[in-house]
Amino acid sequence: MQATPVTRGRTEPLDRRYREVRDLTRALAAPLSDADATVQSMPDASPAKWHLAHVTWFFETFVLRDHVNGYSRYDERFPFLFNSYYEAEGERHSRQRRGMITRPALDEVLAYRDHVDAAIVDAIPDLPEAARSLIELGCHHEQQHQELFLTDILHLFAQNPIEPAIWPAERKVPVDMPGPIRWAEHPGGMVETGHDGRGFAFDCETPRHAELLHPHAIADRTITNREWAQFIADGGYRDARHWLSDGWAWVNENAIAAPLYWEQRDGVWTRFGLDGRRPIDPAAPVTHVSFYEADAYASWAGARLPTEAEWEAFAGDRDPRGGNFLDAAGPVEPRPAREGGGLFGDVWEWTGSAYRPYPGFRAAEGAVGEYNGKFMSGQFVLKGGSCATPRGHARASYRNFFYPHQRWQFTGVRLAKDI
Amino acid sequence: MQATPVTRGRTEPLDRRYREVRDLTRALAAPLSDADATVQSMPDASPAKWHLAHVTWFFETFVLRDHVNGYSRYDERFPFLFNSYYEAEGERHSRQRRGMITRPALDEVLAYRDHVDAAIVDAIPDLPEAARSLIELGCHHEQQHQELFLTDILHLFAQNPIEPAIWPAERKVPVDMPGPIRWAEHPGGMVETGHDGRGFAFDCETPRHAELLHPHAIADRTITNREWAQFIADGGYRDARHWLSDGWAWVNENAIAAPLYWEQRDGVWTRFGLDGRRPIDPAAPVTHVSFYEADAYASWAGARLPTEAEWEAFAGDRDPRGGNFLDAAGPVEPRPAREGGGLFGDVWEWTGSAYRPYPGFRAAEGAVGEYNGKFMSGQFVLKGGSCATPRGHARASYRNFFYPHQRWQFTGVRLAKDI
Amino acid sequence: MQATPVTRGRTEPLDRRYREVRDLTRALAAPLSDADATVQSMPDASPAKWHLAHVTWFFETFVLRDHVNGYSRYDERFPFLFNSYYEAEGERHSRQRRGMITRPALDEVLAYRDHVDAAIVDAIPDLPEAARSLIELGCHHEQQHQELFLTDILHLFAQNPIEPAIWPAERKVPVDMPGPIRWAEHPGGMVETGHDGRGFAFDCETPRHAELLHPHAIADRTITNREWAQFIADGGYRDARHWLSDGWAWVNENAIAAPLYWEQRDGVWTRFGLDGRRPIDPAAPVTHVSFYEADAYASWAGARLPTEAEWEAFAGDRDPRGGNFLDAAGPVEPRPAREGGGLFGDVWEWTGSAYRPYPGFRAAEGAVGEYNGKFMSGQFVLKGGSCATPRGHARASYRNFFYPHQRWQFTGVRLAKDI
Amino acid sequence: MQATPVTRGRTEPLDRRYREVRDLTRALAAPLSDADATVQSMPDASPAKWHLAHVTWFFETFVLRDHVNGYSRYDERFPFLFNSYYEAEGERHSRQRRGMITRPALDEVLAYRDHVDAAIVDAIPDLPEAARSLIELGCHHEQQHQELFLTDILHLFAQNPIEPAIWPAERKVPVDMPGPIRWAEHPGGMVETGHDGRGFAFDCETPRHAELLHPHAIADRTITNREWAQFIADGGYRDARHWLSDGWAWVNENAIAAPLYWEQRDGVWTRFGLDGRRPIDPAAPVTHVSFYEADAYASWAGARLPTEAEWEAFAGDRDPRGGNFLDAAGPVEPRPAREGGGLFGDVWEWTGSAYRPYPGFRAAEGAVGEYNGKFMSGQFVLKGGSCATPRGHARASYRNFFYPHQRWQFTGVRLAKDI
Repeated sequence: MQATPVTRGRTEPLDRRYREVRDLTRALAAPLSDADATVQSMPDASPAKWHLAHVTWFFETFVLRDHVNGYSRYDERFPFLFNSYYEAEGERHSRQRRGMITRPALDEVLAYRDHVDAAIVDAIPDLPEAARSLIELGCHHEQQHQELFLTDILHLFAQNPIEPAIWPAERKVPVDMPGPIRWAEHPGGMVETGHDGRGFAFDCETPRHAELLHPHAIADRTITNREWAQFIADGGYRDARHWLSDGWAWVNENAIAAPLYWEQRDGVWTRFGLDGRRPIDPAAPVTHVSFYEADAYASWAGARLPTEAEWEAFAGDRDPRGGNFLDAAGPVEPRPAREGGGLFGDVWEWTGSAYRPYPGFRAAEGAVGEYNGKFMSGQFVLKGGSCATPRGHARASYRNFFYPHQRWQFTGVRLAKDI
Repeated sequence: MQATPVTRGRTEPLDRRYREVRDLTRALAAPLSDADATVQSMPDASPAKWHLAHVTWFFETFVLRDHVNGYSRYDERFPFLFNSYYEAEGERHSRQRRGMITRPALDEVLAYRDHVDAAIVDAIPDLPEAARSLIELGCHHEQQHQELFLTDILHLFAQNPIEPAIWPAERKVPVDMPGPIRWAEHPGGMVETGHDGRGFAFDCETPRHAELLHPHAIADRTITNREWAQFIADGGYRDARHWLSDGWAWVNENAIAAPLYWEQRDGVWTRFGLDGRRPIDPAAPVTHVSFYEADAYASWAGARLPTEAEWEAFAGDRDPRGGNFLDAAGPVEPRPAREGGGLFGDVWEWTGSAYRPYPGFRAAEGAVGEYNGKFMSGQFVLKGGSCATPRGHARASYRNFFYPHQRWQFTGVRLAKDI
Repeated sequence: MQATPVTRGRTEPLDRRYREVRDLTRALAAPLSDADATVQSMPDASPAKWHLAHVTWFFETFVLRDHVNGYSRYDERFPFLFNSYYEAEGERHSRQRRGMITRPALDEVLAYRDHVDAAIVDAIPDLPEAARSLIELGCHHEQQHQELFLTDILHLFAQNPIEPAIWPAERKVPVDMPGPIRWAEHPGGMVETGHDGRGFAFDCETPRHAELLHPHAIADRTITNREWAQFIADGGYRDARHWLSDGWAWVNENAIAAPLYWEQRDGVWTRFGLDGRRPIDPAAPVTHVSFYEADAYASWAGARLPTEAEWEAFAGDRDPRGGNFLDAAGPVEPRPAREGGGLFGDVWEWTGSAYRPYPGFRAAEGAVGEYNGKFMSGQFVLKGGSCATPRGHARASYRNFFYPHQRWQFTGVRLAKDI
Repeated sequence: MQATPVTRGRTEPLDRRYREVRDLTRALAAPLSDADATVQSMPDASPAKWHLAHVTWFFETFVLRDHVNGYSRYDERFPFLFNSYYEAEGERHSRQRRGMITRPALDEVLAYRDHVDAAIVDAIPDLPEAARSLIELGCHHEQQHQELFLTDILHLFAQNPIEPAIWPAERKVPVDMPGPIRWAEHPGGMVETGHDGRGFAFDCETPRHAELLHPHAIADRTITNREWAQFIADGGYRDARHWLSDGWAWVNENAIAAPLYWEQRDGVWTRFGLDGRRPIDPAAPVTHVSFYEADAYASWAGARLPTEAEWEAFAGDRDPRGGNFLDAAGPVEPRPAREGGGLFGDVWEWTGSAYRPYPGFRAAEGAVGEYNGKFMSGQFVLKGGSCATPRGHARASYRNFFYPHQRWQFTGVRLAKDI
């Protein structure tokens, strides 16, 4: 486990890369009991054990089964249990029933990981380039699940009335509040958007293409908890004018009145996190808000959310590996960004762009082609990465996506406006 | 009632315009009984009586109440009953309970219309320009409800096991099949999109702005019923590879296997329409398909849906008043388009564009500002107008929008592809 | 239409009996519009038009089709539309979709009634005894639907925010409150229960059999609105101790805090009835309460509900045709009973007895055997008849039954206790 | 752990009784992992860990807290987590969220058990009689939970596609089929029903009272799996005539076509049990059938279910401790009864009697008064005990109760008929 940022390029040996990713996943699982790893807290979330097995199934299926002669499945029953949504890979266990799988136990799943790890590491020297690419893809895939692992287990622990801390930690020292938002203006014009071909990318980030921007300004930092508390105090959750129609229905049907995990205790706003329940840090970026909330806040503030292309232009060539990312297992959380910083890391930033294919998009061939393209309806793009995103996983062209009501990820808000 | 296309410009006298619109609505209601006009067949649809009253409430509220001294409400209870979704106009009856309002009866609602009509026509000569604009807006608003009136009543009659024809009609003479699709290529580049300021437009069509197109081709006609039947026969509804993930879930949860209102009777595909149940016309455009179905068809055909801007560029300066539109009450239905024609009218064409604000969009002031902007999440844009759209209501910049699963409108498919 | 109690025995001519029943149904429908008669306000209720047609279908099917040579169906599509639940009679329209049938219109249904009435009256002189019995059964069946007709239409009108009165009426003169409950003691012992064979009875009332009573006392009158208001004021709806577990869940899930149709307006308890909304009459029996509420009230009052056999023994040989019953179309409602009276009529009285078969029960032969027996799970017995029950329809052995949460019938409470 | 039947009376020392019960519970938990013990498979079932803790909370609350000076709660958070439904004991965790409690872990719950056990055993010598009675009640309470523990864990394992055996076991040797049912006739008359005061009973079994039986006959054995397979083969699940209306709706909405846990594999009926999946044993009593199924089977067979009083009279003074009961942890299942035997044990037998209070019933005082009385609506009585009922727990007066659709208990069918 490393405590410093990972910096690596394509030249890093594949086996080292593989082992680092796999080790971090295991470290995340270290504090979990068999029960913690088994329960599913809602249909959107998966059990930790399922994450551990599913990412392993991915390597076993697309690398070992397809590219290693003589490999035989660790357990013939696992594909049914641990395929996520790959229709081309056949029938699978219902997503909302993943929490019923008390066996295999956590230890058995870890043994499955060991078995596949040994086979992969053993095979790497002789693999063809296609298989090596799949290992690279599998590592990025596993990094995505590392983030889901953290947010899903946080959601589970939040359901427990005794509110256990997953990683107990010292109370943080309060920090100074950031100053008012400063606006970075952009005169509009043609920009290049999408992945530039250097390093890994998912298919949905391609092809790189021109986009036309219109004149606008974008905030130099994200919205803080203190600012969000002002939105609440001003009746933001009860004023229909600020809300999209779907969002207003969602607020009312679910009695939404604050970000997820916020509760008022003795008049103080607290939040539940990987280190248990604590008062909110007023200077930290607000997180666990839905697109609907983000959009309503922007309306209340007289602004709007940035588009994906605006955000990407703003990111420019900043180093996507800086900032507050996941380096090691522990109670990650958004930290107060220095003014003008924090574009990468801390919280995923909702954009106003629907998640749709780029011009000329083609899904990858084969089962892995189901990775992104089939989710391109009803969701919104988020940019930048969060404190739960493995360092090195995010980049400016990265397109994260969730439904507008979802908020169990570390999701926050950056404003933009027309000029 | 007129049988020929309406052609009018801004110079048409406002009172004539008002009366023509109001008269057509009343003609649409002519074949309906009190019961037909009262029942709500699903939460998405509204009773005919509600449409008749709601559009009247719109004029009464935003013109008579706000701009005519001394006007007093026809009935103080009606705003609660007939406000649709204007939060700024106060509490209102729940949308899904609209079918419970057996009283006021259809006749009473028609008397309400008469009362408001007389007051409007009386007031027009002295109204300020702002109020005249609201009448113009109210006419366009009512035209939208004319289309919903037809599609809602069609949906209601389709629920009745005895399948009554709303407007009984002669069996149509079969027509020749259109030839294969021909593709109109576009080299890409900058285009102007959105309303050009000539004539009426809704706020969501503005501001006009530059868009960057990428090279593509667009089909010269829409998909026919015969082509759709081939898609079905080829197992299109049972092959997950063609479907968006949300669409696949929708297909399976609702056992979708054909367009809405299609049923196989004695081995023949039939459809239910305003003239009752009939065999499908193979040469006519397929209609009553959802975005999910349209997108799956496009995938099956090796193509995609056009973007809104591509569609608008393709429409160019063709006359939006031509084609098969609603001119008079009767059993409208999509008619086989001449090859290369039919861009306007017949069926609304799903685009691949999410319904989101244009750059620099600002909602209109006041309660009418709730008209469009608050619906800008989760829906897709449709272009061109249908056989149920009043002639003269559609235009190239018009942005119709529905959720991707909805299909009780006259919705069809035009393909596009990258080149 | 008659305003005095009907008194008749088996010797009344069948055609006169038939016509009286049919005429009363039609009188009940007189104030209804086509729309009023078409809408279904909840799955438990049926549209008025459906009641009108269904009872007619019953005569047409079991008498005309089965016993009159050469009779041909009025409309071949009607059995599918108007069969209620007789599995032996084939497929039928879904119960919860009855409100979609805007056609045939009310007038057409009335014409269907006329047609069947003429055929029945014409056939009566030559019918065999079995068919005459079916007419008798059909009359009792129609009387049951007369009561449902009233309670269903009341429920529908209660959904309308403008709260129309079905039969507008003068405000009633307040009456004196009844005195405290007096208890009629019973020492226990063997009693005969069930129908004694004199006159008509449904199969579920048979066979008459011995039951063993235990010592108990039964109240001489039902609970009044004033007493119920005290129960509310004492927190009865918020105190779990008084409630059955299922009832407590029902109260909380549905936010139940008063009888159906009660609303507090300006601090005064009002109720909605066939004559519109009015203040409750403190002296009148409480009505529109569920079994759960009745049971909770009894618990709060330190008593219990009577068993069916206790109630029947208490009724003894009182004349079941006395009291406040339905004689003619109009705004029936429970009236303050003289002390010691009111056992029959006013409100159906919940018993503590589950609706289960009597010892030796056998369902009738054929489709009409589905009339009662198949409903013998999950429901509770009610006794005595209500203000909406046609006079002459109730008797001591009559077993009405509803689910414990249902309360849109005129249902009330009589207490009992162990001694 | 003992393998022979427990025979004890009131003179057995209380501490030995307590330890035996507590030890058996722990033995049942022995094969379970932390995850197995944590997951909740449906709202009707509870996690094993919850059972282990809840029965302990019962002793801690009603004995230690109320009767032992100076006892302090093991953990102040546990009452909220482990109270089941005692409203008088305050707020508690939602029943359907019991599976979210991954912590405390199984080991911690077992430590909680140890703590309370030591305190109880230590306190017993000095406890007043009221507290001793509560220990006795607590032991019976825990025995009930032992049965639920087994049926809940069976249900959980049945959700797992890999179908793990909880207690792997040898395939049983097939046994001879029982002969045809023989009918024990009863001439009717007065009988005494309910608990006779000798030994422990729950409040709902009292008071003992006279009941009047009508002439009837009762089968000498329960229905076998082979007979049930004939019912299936004869179309029993598809013939509405045999079903109660609620049952028919349940069958169709849930696509019920066989007992719970039955599946046809390669043309052979199999069942899932505590020892995994196996072919059904044709000679064994059918189990895991609902009241609706039991009632439909009886109708198909031209019989009916016995009433509770008939069953109790038939049981007479047979020894309730004989038969196939739970003696020790292991894969219990119904075993083919010798002809004329098996009244106690093997399967709970559905009666036709709704679970309602006996004449003169009074719930126990205090919180334990919520034990039975508040469940007296909507449920049916079962008699006799099952292979999962701890030996010695059942008796002729015992009233088990479940909703008519529930079937995850070991529930079976004995026929009766009128004579």
